[in-house]
Amino acid sequence: MIKKILIANRGDIAVRIIRTCKEMGIKTVAIYSEIDKDCFHRFIADESICIGPNNINKSYNNIDNIIYLAQKLKCDAIHPGFGFLSENPEFAEKCEESGIIFIGPTKEQMLLMGDKAKARETMVKIGVPVVPGSDSVIKSKEEARNEADRIGYPVIIKASAGGGGKGMRIVSSESEIDNAFDMASSEALSAFGNGDLYMEKFIENPRHIEVQVFGDKYGEAIHLGDRDCSMQRRNQKVIEESPSPYLNKVERDKLYKTAVNAVKGVGYAGAGTVEFIVDKNKNFYFIEMNTRIQVEHPVTEMVTGLDLIKLQIQIASGEKMPIKQEDIIFRGHAIECRINAENARLNFAPCPGTIDEINVPGGFGVRFDTFVYSGYTIPPIYDSMIGKLICWADTREDCIRRMDRALDEIIIEGIKTNIDFQSALINSDGFVNDTHHTKYIENEFLKYFSAE
Amino acid sequence: MIKKILIANRGDIAVRIIRTCKEMGIKTVAIYSEIDKDCFHRFIADESICIGPNNINKSYNNIDNIIYLAQKLKCDAIHPGFGFLSENPEFAEKCEESGIIFIGPTKEQMLLMGDKAKARETMVKIGVPVVPGSDSVIKSKEEARNEADRIGYPVIIKASAGGGGKGMRIVSSESEIDNAFDMASSEALSAFGNGDLYMEKFIENPRHIEVQVFGDKYGEAIHLGDRDCSMQRRNQKVIEESPSPYLNKVERDKLYKTAVNAVKGVGYAGAGTVEFIVDKNKNFYFIEMNTRIQVEHPVTEMVTGLDLIKLQIQIASGEKMPIKQEDIIFRGHAIECRINAENARLNFAPCPGTIDEINVPGGFGVRFDTFVYSGYTIPPIYDSMIGKLICWADTREDCIRRMDRALDEIIIEGIKTNIDFQSALINSDGFVNDTHHTKYIENEFLKYFSAE
Repeated sequence: MIKKILIANRGDIAVRIIRTCKEMGIKTVAIYSEIDKDCFHRFIADESICIGPNNINKSYNNIDNIIYLAQKLKCDAIHPGFGFLSENPEFAEKCEESGIIFIGPTKEQMLLMGDKAKARETMVKIGVPVVPGSDSVIKSKEEARNEADRIGYPVIIKASAGGGGKGMRIVSSESEIDNAFDMASSEALSAFGNGDLYMEKFIENPRHIEVQVFGDKYGEAIHLGDRDCSMQRRNQKVIEESPSPYLNKVERDKLYKTAVNAVKGVGYAGAGTVEFIVDKNKNFYFIEMNTRIQVEHPVTEMVTGLDLIKLQIQIASGEKMPIKQEDIIFRGHAIECRINAENARLNFAPCPGTIDEINVPGGFGVRFDTFVYSGYTIPPIYDSMIGKLICWADTREDCIRRMDRALDEIIIEGIKTNIDFQSALINSDGFVNDTHHTKYIENEFLKYFSAE
Repeated sequence: MIKKILIANRGDIAVRIIRTCKEMGIKTVAIYSEIDKDCFHRFIADESICIGPNNINKSYNNIDNIIYLAQKLKCDAIHPGFGFLSENPEFAEKCEESGIIFIGPTKEQMLLMGDKAKARETMVKIGVPVVPGSDSVIKSKEEARNEADRIGYPVIIKASAGGGGKGMRIVSSESEIDNAFDMASSEALSAFGNGDLYMEKFIENPRHIEVQVFGDKYGEAIHLGDRDCSMQRRNQKVIEESPSPYLNKVERDKLYKTAVNAVKGVGYAGAGTVEFIVDKNKNFYFIEMNTRIQVEHPVTEMVTGLDLIKLQIQIASGEKMPIKQEDIIFRGHAIECRINAENARLNFAPCPGTIDEINVPGGFGVRFDTFVYSGYTIPPIYDSMIGKLICWADTREDCIRRMDRALDEIIIEGIKTNIDFQSALINSDGFVNDTHHTKYIENEFLKYFSAE
């Protein structure tokens, strides 16, 4: 059994991990960069050590320093949290070589899922649906027409070398395809020096629904239900909930079965999230698998009653799956709002600074995971998330009302936050009526919010 | 349906009620005494009104003022919380006469349960076990011997007019009874001017286990499980938990059935608590029924997932029982530690004063219900409870560890609190091994705690 864990992270997730370690009787070592000397996670750990200067590569991403420290302080395991080194195969490998348990999957599993093309290929083999697309570069307009016919309109033509929307064209019928091909190709050529194009089915305004999975080291795999993370801004999740209100029981069961098959198919061990996009007809397509704990894991904890960090530690210790699928009971509904230090009315500019005073919401069904406190100064060099407000209630409707009430109760003085934005969003027609999608905030909500 | 509620209370329970009202879309009116102008409950209510000076009878217990205000502000209901007017039949009656819904039982039900002798008589009729005792005054030593034989040793002789331990003798065998009778009688005579005595079976070191019940106005009644409140100091509850670890399934079911029968037997409507003491052989005896919400209600909420204040409001509105007994699922274990502003090492002297800084514990399974905040001054004239820390986990063992962790995280600067006392108590042999009882703190725990 693991006796001492170094937490190779900071802030909210470091606090989260230390809490579970304390409850399991496991000693903890916190690391912190110079600017993080007042960060809450270091105060609640058994030991805390400055790992280096503020530059991320010299502190939280400094693999050798972190492993050296873990060995020196006789830690038997390292928990990477999320972000930083959590999906770094080299880190996982070096931990293993140093005789330290990496709380996460093996290097090989990480490499497989980290390579989007390989992951896609693997999923196709296992029988997991992926977004239909061309298997290779499309060389001519004729080939483009044939591929589009095969895939079905609308399709999206993308630059092979591309990104950021350059060399990208959405094509809704055959009459548009020749022109789109020419435009995309020349745009790609001028932007990336490479005119190669490929094609995918275009899923308009999709939902993002993911399945929380756990595999153990002996081939057993379970799911802990889904999370709907369709409320996003620029591909960043803003609100997450469990279960997704978008699926009925049959659709949900199919999704779960697919996700568990994916985990078993790759022999994955640890906590993972199989992410799907879901179209208007409830077809779902694998997009990626995250090989770590996610920011939004608390909504799953609230509906299952299971501590996901504890499960991670148990599985990394080599325990057999601690719970059977049929013993997991899903109760009620949970929603998480990410609370960020940012100005939603100024294009969501980050607003670091000193929190003069914070009043945390409380009461039945309310959980606030944070690492900030009155007098704490948010450094400008990390992300702007300062807390996660999670509410649970028997139904989604009650949960929205509880979230609304809890958002009302938070007081954070001294800095700007997105609390008013979240209050408006949670009460928006799109969210309340469950008609939102991954482009809802940018394409529909923001114009109303900005006009207020 | 109720649209606006006046909360005739302060502090923690006022905050608790307002939160649920907000979630139900019900408007709220908070009242406060002059000294309570900075109390948190008044800031989160839709309206707040100073009800009078600090003297309780001129403010929170001023029936006429409260009803006048409720009428003036067009409230259709009053929630009394606990303490103050919550068990005052006159208040319930005057509310009814004024056309205001009193969120609680009727005056008649309150009167019945408020009179301990009548309540006992009623329970005997319904078939609920009560502590065996003499039905009337014991007139002679001979009668005392006969009664003790009938009841079974040990017995306790008590002064009819008495209280505070005066004129009270525990008798463990027949040889002691004559002397005890004489001593108790003369002590009672000198203390109360009345030497009358009665007799009860003496239950040594009992457990206190209570059942949360709800009745509706149409004769339906359900239970929401039990709470073990055996950890007491001078008859004040200190730690409460649900379910009681002391009972097995058969014993538990018998207790629940008895409690529901009691509720149905008196046609009780609203939230109630049927309190029992339980002896070493798991015999349980009715002691009283509280006709209101209790301080410790959150542990029941955590294991049932039901909002008890919402249920109260629904039933007071005249709704039929909103949930069926068979649909209530009990999950996991919950513990509540009362956090008081007091000095446990100075005979628990209250320590009012200004809270310079408060850091609230968080994370999975942790709930902190409070009405204090950084900069708040606790007035010296009300009780010393400043918050309730409630933890939930899958098992009792995990719940104790979580509570230990959460107690560790609270920081309250500026005043003395009982946090260290609660930390020691939660880890005490008596609590961990479930061998504690209502006299455990005074007779066993305090000598170790004081010696630390």
